[in-house]
Amino acid sequence: MNYQPYERTTNYYETDQMGIIHHSNYIRYMEEARTNYMEQMGIPYRSIEEYGILIPVLSASCQYRSAVRYGDTLLISVSTVGFNGIKVELAYEIRDKKSNELRAQGATSHCFLGKNFKPLSLKKSHPSLYDAFMQSLPQPDSDPNP
Amino acid sequence: MNYQPYERTTNYYETDQMGIIHHSNYIRYMEEARTNYMEQMGIPYRSIEEYGILIPVLSASCQYRSAVRYGDTLLISVSTVGFNGIKVELAYEIRDKKSNELRAQGATSHCFLGKNFKPLSLKKSHPSLYDAFMQSLPQPDSDPNP
Amino acid sequence: MNYQPYERTTNYYETDQMGIIHHSNYIRYMEEARTNYMEQMGIPYRSIEEYGILIPVLSASCQYRSAVRYGDTLLISVSTVGFNGIKVELAYEIRDKKSNELRAQGATSHCFLGKNFKPLSLKKSHPSLYDAFMQSLPQPDSDPNP
Amino acid sequence: MNYQPYERTTNYYETDQMGIIHHSNYIRYMEEARTNYMEQMGIPYRSIEEYGILIPVLSASCQYRSAVRYGDTLLISVSTVGFNGIKVELAYEIRDKKSNELRAQGATSHCFLGKNFKPLSLKKSHPSLYDAFMQSLPQPDSDPNP
Repeated sequence: MNYQPYERTTNYYETDQMGIIHHSNYIRYMEEARTNYMEQMGIPYRSIEEYGILIPVLSASCQYRSAVRYGDTLLISVSTVGFNGIKVELAYEIRDKKSNELRAQGATSHCFLGKNFKPLSLKKSHPSLYDAFMQSLPQPDSDPNP
Repeated sequence: MNYQPYERTTNYYETDQMGIIHHSNYIRYMEEARTNYMEQMGIPYRSIEEYGILIPVLSASCQYRSAVRYGDTLLISVSTVGFNGIKVELAYEIRDKKSNELRAQGATSHCFLGKNFKPLSLKKSHPSLYDAFMQSLPQPDSDPNP
Repeated sequence: MNYQPYERTTNYYETDQMGIIHHSNYIRYMEEARTNYMEQMGIPYRSIEEYGILIPVLSASCQYRSAVRYGDTLLISVSTVGFNGIKVELAYEIRDKKSNELRAQGATSHCFLGKNFKPLSLKKSHPSLYDAFMQSLPQPDSDPNP
Repeated sequence: MNYQPYERTTNYYETDQMGIIHHSNYIRYMEEARTNYMEQMGIPYRSIEEYGILIPVLSASCQYRSAVRYGDTLLISVSTVGFNGIKVELAYEIRDKKSNELRAQGATSHCFLGKNFKPLSLKKSHPSLYDAFMQSLPQPDSDPNP
């Protein structure tokens, strides 16, 4: 499946006195892109929480490559780089929409919690959620020499 | 009773590209000052929520008088200007600690909700909370001519 | 002229532990709607600042009518309710896109500053900006009895 | 030299609907701790910017170990783990003040920019700033066997 990058224009209140977007906002943009990505996977985060599942962040990181300014439109691509039913690892690429220049690269990892904050193993507990993440992993090429 | 103003130094991530603290943060500073004020009243907001009471914001306003900059220390005074057991009205004054210059004036109003988001009348439901807010109202002078 | 309401879907990081969108974010949504409104007026805020004009907030207020939740899509209408070349007053109406229910009403007022933070009188200094705001004011009905 | 950890109590507006402090705020807490650390080094960030030097963030990361709740008081320790005059690397440890439990570990790296966003080599351009960071590096033990 092909996922569309998430499009986001920066807001004035996200700037700082250096005249650029404050670095903490990228962590929030990654969250926006992640929930958009999961929506494209068919598992909107909103319904997941209504279902009683939480997907907290275990780690987050960002490398800032070039400054983002007020009013810039960003394209944020998300990809699943690891998933074992217990933990998922996502990678992010943030580019300027107009120039296609790389603005930042990021990563987050997450686990899955059920009622009472107990860790879940999705394969048994929620197979459809498990399948959605499995299918988001990069697929081996279909047979190149048929 | 005498309430101490709430002291707060501004953070870099609260600036914007005008080189001043972004106006939306004042609404947050007022919340910090409000919870500090309630702590001084003997009713820390944290234990109020554990008690099952929510105090949502019905309205908020702020008049910006002079700019606040990164690293400035503010003193925020809170006072109860209205309370009837169902609704409370608070006023705020934000001054620069060093110069005592007025930076902003604000106001918020709040109601009280119990389980299931049902409005509470504090006098009956939570008399000690009722008393705390009553005592925070400006008191009539004690008899000047005894 | 007819202005389109600004559409905005709420983000997870904008929720608080009451399970609703934190009230301070409405002030930020109003800023987003305001810059979108000015773009529709033909005066994008970005180019205004590049031009050396700042439009700081003198006052902001919000009445919260009903709770907004994570993932809700809002429609925010902005209208100019006062303008005299020195100060502009804007009103905001925030509605749920799906149900059309009123979520909040707000207001902001602003002045215009030039280099060195000096107040501007737009009519003389920037007539095209002056005209744009004049035209955004509610127009008297065209002659009903020709 | 001994640096004191930075103390910070969490705010209500920093919670999310999971009932915990939203993970993006840790990046902001690290900034607060970093500027406090630099103040202890004798180089307050405010005067550094007035001096025309910017210290942008090149990368930031955080491992979340256990949840932080509204009203918790955190102690954040900062240490310099690398510095070569061109780039500095800082590490952070966030603990609960009461229980001393580890809440998170983080890292940031930064470069130094002068006028026109040109990279600086501090040793030549700003020797006192260079010395302050050099002295913040972990010092080799004084001779254990005299």
